[in-house]
Amino acid sequence: MINIPQLHTELKDKIQYKLDQKAKPIGSLGMLEEIALRLGMMQGTLEPELNNPVMLTVAADHEVVKEGVTPCPAEITWQQCLNFMDGGGGIGLFSHQFGFEHYVVDAGVDFDFKPHKYLIDAKVRKASRNLMHEPAMTMDECKQAIENGRKAVRRFAETGSTVVGFGEMGIGNTTPASALLSVYAGLPVDDCVGPGSGLNTEGVKHKAHVIKTAIKKHGISEEALENLARFGGLEIACIAGGMLEAAAQRMAVLVDGFITTSAAIAATEICPEAANYFFYSHLSNEQGHRKMLAHLNGKPIMQLDLRLGEGTGCALAFPVMQGAVNMINNMTSFDEAAVYNTANEVLKTK
Amino acid sequence: MINIPQLHTELKDKIQYKLDQKAKPIGSLGMLEEIALRLGMMQGTLEPELNNPVMLTVAADHEVVKEGVTPCPAEITWQQCLNFMDGGGGIGLFSHQFGFEHYVVDAGVDFDFKPHKYLIDAKVRKASRNLMHEPAMTMDECKQAIENGRKAVRRFAETGSTVVGFGEMGIGNTTPASALLSVYAGLPVDDCVGPGSGLNTEGVKHKAHVIKTAIKKHGISEEALENLARFGGLEIACIAGGMLEAAAQRMAVLVDGFITTSAAIAATEICPEAANYFFYSHLSNEQGHRKMLAHLNGKPIMQLDLRLGEGTGCALAFPVMQGAVNMINNMTSFDEAAVYNTANEVLKTK
Repeated sequence: MINIPQLHTELKDKIQYKLDQKAKPIGSLGMLEEIALRLGMMQGTLEPELNNPVMLTVAADHEVVKEGVTPCPAEITWQQCLNFMDGGGGIGLFSHQFGFEHYVVDAGVDFDFKPHKYLIDAKVRKASRNLMHEPAMTMDECKQAIENGRKAVRRFAETGSTVVGFGEMGIGNTTPASALLSVYAGLPVDDCVGPGSGLNTEGVKHKAHVIKTAIKKHGISEEALENLARFGGLEIACIAGGMLEAAAQRMAVLVDGFITTSAAIAATEICPEAANYFFYSHLSNEQGHRKMLAHLNGKPIMQLDLRLGEGTGCALAFPVMQGAVNMINNMTSFDEAAVYNTANEVLKTK
Repeated sequence: MINIPQLHTELKDKIQYKLDQKAKPIGSLGMLEEIALRLGMMQGTLEPELNNPVMLTVAADHEVVKEGVTPCPAEITWQQCLNFMDGGGGIGLFSHQFGFEHYVVDAGVDFDFKPHKYLIDAKVRKASRNLMHEPAMTMDECKQAIENGRKAVRRFAETGSTVVGFGEMGIGNTTPASALLSVYAGLPVDDCVGPGSGLNTEGVKHKAHVIKTAIKKHGISEEALENLARFGGLEIACIAGGMLEAAAQRMAVLVDGFITTSAAIAATEICPEAANYFFYSHLSNEQGHRKMLAHLNGKPIMQLDLRLGEGTGCALAFPVMQGAVNMINNMTSFDEAAVYNTANEVLKTK
């Protein structure tokens, strides 16, 4: 198994004290203070840093599209990957704007990409299998996808990245994400499905039918990994692996929307301690996402009704994390600011 | 009265069409698309810009602090103003980080500031009057505060700013903000008060008592301006004036938390059309703020449990607005990205 280090909880009081000395009412920067506190405990320091931010958009195809679970042609997966590598798409744009080095990770796209500076080859096979008829991955394929995700992240940990955002691209992948939510959280399938990129009510019903059929056929395992193999997808397993490695390396993990959060659930089912390193960038507009965050006991940084994926929510939420780090490192204290010296005491007594 | 121009609604379909050509499912960038659409209609263009962002932290004191409505010493107001001018405090820090030129606007601080590059003198008197015993401002003082706010903003409109954030500093100012919410929205005072910078339950009750006494003494007027004079404060009136001028100049207005939003309510009571130019940066942790946003029919960009004021929420939300502008101007379309040419048609049919 993967060894995820504990948080440096022995620093909690010291970090909190530092936050409470800032020239502001105690706790008045809300979530920014929570973020700063956790980053400090992750990194074992009163001066946490977010260095060399990297964004990984992990892509794969899904043979289950043959069952008509999406109105989008599968070719969009590889076409968007090319678009992203050239800095296009939502995530290409926002990665550049918000200071991420952005890579496309090919975990299982049905296309032969030429080598590219911003492409990481992590391909296991050319698509996740049709989960309605067989497990989405064999156990070996699933383990390989996880290992490939770990390897992709290790490279950035070794060169000094302390924060990684995960997003995805994969036509059809709300189907495995919904299935994983149902299986891991023990929720009815109908509560886990939504329109994705644009299904109508009939389409959503059909997607639920496909998932129900798959669960009936494969059954639910006691093993987290088995369920990931049966109902997941190559990019989801690859992201889960990447998240686990990032947590093992004490990196901050930015989680995007519905599909990426299903990978976060899989990761925490495999290693619960990993969640200590996760930051949920936003609450998306896909109905199941709220249930995912509730299952993870996770609080979203933003709620912008996004439903694009790719990692876009991670990029947009990152400035708030940078604000938290700037605050704990550089905001003046009451003493430094020469603000009325009883103010802090007065405010502490509340 | 102030002439607030209508939005360029004749461009709505064209801007929406531009958004719908982007390489993404229709509407999948949620609130960013709403922001881009509205900025386009405000500025009358398909290529909106957010130029020379300016942050105004408007400060004043309040004689009502004599009634024990806050645990904080009033001296914090001027001390924090000096701190801000030197780039300190939450808003000094975040203004610098997120690219705002930051000014302290003295609308009525009980201190004689020396001239400073980042201080705007808009002082009407050395504090808002004690609203428990007399109107917080005479009508002349209230009009002067509004005019001073307008003048402060005009300067930046003339030098090319297209976006202005408003924050405040004023020990005791949750009392007038709560009173204005109660009076303008017709809500019971007890539903409009909260702990502010750190009152306990008894303290909150006492604050409510002070407000109830004031409302009983002065009565509620039919005139928006009269109510602002009776129950507001110098910085609140100054901010309301600044917001009205910004709307008149077609500038985007970023609204911060509880106190700043009370000014936004006052501004819309005076000129309802002003709200077309307002963007609500966040939902704060002060209970009445949710009611304010509901009254304004306003949707917050973030919800970070902030309760610091100063303009900090505006600064933290600004990257999302910049993301919206970047998206409408620079995100590739399906055609440009050479992504499957039926994708857009397929997704449009949802």
